Amino acid sequence: MNSYKLHYPLAMDDNTKNMMANAYGTLLREREQGISGYYNLPQDSLLLTQELQKEHPFDDFDRIAVIGIGGSSLGTKAIHSFLGPKREHLPLYFLENPDPVELRKIFEKLDKKHTLFLVISKSGTTIETISIFKAVIKHFGLELKGNKHITFITDIDSPLHKFAEEFGLKSFAIPKNVGGRFSVLSSVGIVPLTLAGFDTPKILQGAKGMIERFFALEEEHILQKAAFIAQNWPTYRMNVLFSYANELEDFNKWYVQLWGESLGKKDPFGKNVGPTPIGHIGPVDQHSFLQLIIEGPRDKTVSFLCIENFEETLSIPDLSLPYLEKTDFVNKVSFARLVDEECKATMRSVRSQKIPVDSIVVPSFCEEGIGELIAYYELLTSATGAMLGITTYNQPGVELGKKILKERFRQ
Amino acid sequence: MNSYKLHYPLAMDDNTKNMMANAYGTLLREREQGISGYYNLPQDSLLLTQELQKEHPFDDFDRIAVIGIGGSSLGTKAIHSFLGPKREHLPLYFLENPDPVELRKIFEKLDKKHTLFLVISKSGTTIETISIFKAVIKHFGLELKGNKHITFITDIDSPLHKFAEEFGLKSFAIPKNVGGRFSVLSSVGIVPLTLAGFDTPKILQGAKGMIERFFALEEEHILQKAAFIAQNWPTYRMNVLFSYANELEDFNKWYVQLWGESLGKKDPFGKNVGPTPIGHIGPVDQHSFLQLIIEGPRDKTVSFLCIENFEETLSIPDLSLPYLEKTDFVNKVSFARLVDEECKATMRSVRSQKIPVDSIVVPSFCEEGIGELIAYYELLTSATGAMLGITTYNQPGVELGKKILKERFRQ
Repeated sequence: MNSYKLHYPLAMDDNTKNMMANAYGTLLREREQGISGYYNLPQDSLLLTQELQKEHPFDDFDRIAVIGIGGSSLGTKAIHSFLGPKREHLPLYFLENPDPVELRKIFEKLDKKHTLFLVISKSGTTIETISIFKAVIKHFGLELKGNKHITFITDIDSPLHKFAEEFGLKSFAIPKNVGGRFSVLSSVGIVPLTLAGFDTPKILQGAKGMIERFFALEEEHILQKAAFIAQNWPTYRMNVLFSYANELEDFNKWYVQLWGESLGKKDPFGKNVGPTPIGHIGPVDQHSFLQLIIEGPRDKTVSFLCIENFEETLSIPDLSLPYLEKTDFVNKVSFARLVDEECKATMRSVRSQKIPVDSIVVPSFCEEGIGELIAYYELLTSATGAMLGITTYNQPGVELGKKILKERFRQ
Repeated sequence: MNSYKLHYPLAMDDNTKNMMANAYGTLLREREQGISGYYNLPQDSLLLTQELQKEHPFDDFDRIAVIGIGGSSLGTKAIHSFLGPKREHLPLYFLENPDPVELRKIFEKLDKKHTLFLVISKSGTTIETISIFKAVIKHFGLELKGNKHITFITDIDSPLHKFAEEFGLKSFAIPKNVGGRFSVLSSVGIVPLTLAGFDTPKILQGAKGMIERFFALEEEHILQKAAFIAQNWPTYRMNVLFSYANELEDFNKWYVQLWGESLGKKDPFGKNVGPTPIGHIGPVDQHSFLQLIIEGPRDKTVSFLCIENFEETLSIPDLSLPYLEKTDFVNKVSFARLVDEECKATMRSVRSQKIPVDSIVVPSFCEEGIGELIAYYELLTSATGAMLGITTYNQPGVELGKKILKERFRQ
């Protein structure tokens, strides 16, 4: 199990306790009344993994292209980047941004015969995703009728679902009450990751444990952290997630979407609220963003995310180079320990500035760890949203841009 | 040439005019007195490119490994990612973060015979860089004495420079008055990029034009933008650089370092100041961060960075799929135009919220464009720093963490 620690003192007055109790009640209600469906995904998706592992309804393929954007790809990318370097799996490619340079680069790695194309869109009409899908059909000369190399993941009764039925193509449903950014443990992430060979039941198990413990009131730190953020965001306007592993860079992006789209809202009084999520990678960004944290304005909280055991043996050799002897204090140390010690030293230097810090430790690049981490951030987001009194699960702010885009093409 | 536009009204009162005039004077003085050397790099480095192209002091190599972190790699990565997909060049690998999973992955792509190892450290004793260099020596069994596959870029008289001399290894100097994050157009970026085959003289030319025009008072928008940021950062605490191309992701990171380390400072009155830089990529992050910009707190300015001509022909086919007809309004449109129209539509939706917006258009993935863009951001950073009354070119805040790290290993 991961470990979580808040390094700042909490004002546990009645007001705070009430906030926490109310938010807990809200999440309980969301789960029980099915207002948000993500709480049940760890159980519900387990069946899906069994089906996928049992029967293999696809033609042969040796690589998977995920066509999806935002909530349809970020979670899968996060898990893929986290577990990928340590596990045997089929290559996963992400056709996400409509940038034509990027698309061309990825097209070169795919072919008609050996690729499974997974088209993922909750609404079924995401303009970037459907446009890329059309380009894929043309570029690879894909037959549509009954093609076992094309599969969809979308809402039941979405236009994309109907399209799939029309052509006899396989499609998986996304539960109606699971929004894109909370959907990684639904078919959205579980289908590509299972088919690529990842041990998704273990990921789900990690998430399940966290959700169960949260509702059993055994993970109170989540409500405490949410309360601190909800009470103090006008002062601490940003939360920096400082993750100490390259393999967490896509997880950072997933966190930024989850937090940003969920918490950046108008509250019931019409006020624009919400803390801003920022992702950084350590130790590298100690050479970039740390100066601003330490000496800049006191408008940030910092969450340190570390891997306890990299399970890697690469070490700094016991080599003393002339004139460079002052670097010898890390000789014979493993790089994993260097990263860990840098994380701890940086955390201490940030704490010494009275900047609110919390830390998360994941034991290793393991399935349970990433599953639990995902559930942790989802619960934290829901709890913070409840405390801010906002609607956590919609994103009305992005509609205007879509409308303007359409108008621009009408001219 | 790039184009730059501020879409917010400027309060051009006497106070603002004075700020701008004073900042201009400060930058002029910095250049004339050599307080900061980056202003002269476009000329100074031209000689270096000629030398590198003329004589070839290295053994044969067909790939380059850059061993460096922060200012020693971010700028090179930014240019490499921007120009790379469109140009023939040798592969460049970056050994940057000491994450052992990442190091192992990159080690697999290198070998002793065909790799030029470029070790870059301004101080010459960066702990991550020297540790990785030691691991490289051991892993690849590198001879040191006179090895033409090892080259250094470092300050004259740094310990690393002395080490190079001791072993008869080639080294390039970084001008003393050029800090890491302002050093991309010095040997730090010019050596690897030129050796990899990029047309660095053109990059320098783009930068030179911008710097000359700035000092000829022909790019006043830079001082105006700096004044807006310096006056309003306590309200608009973040600047989001929304870059519409995957190829700009590393540029975003370079910008975050440049801005964050330069402007996040204690001012002369001991106050912690500085706006926070955040990088995002469009259109993809319209599905992530845009909701927060539109409906969240009014604490951000947004800079849109677009490529006018992707020089790519990939288009959305004229394909009408049953049930998906509502996506047909972009049929026959090139993906490049889709990206551009999304940028414009999003910019308009953000502007409609009265959020301060500015825009930058780079004509294509060209050398002059990226060179100019780099000079633009460096000048903007220097001007903003001057207006905030801070020391733009140091980073005292990162020292404490280094000290604590050393202590942890002494125990």
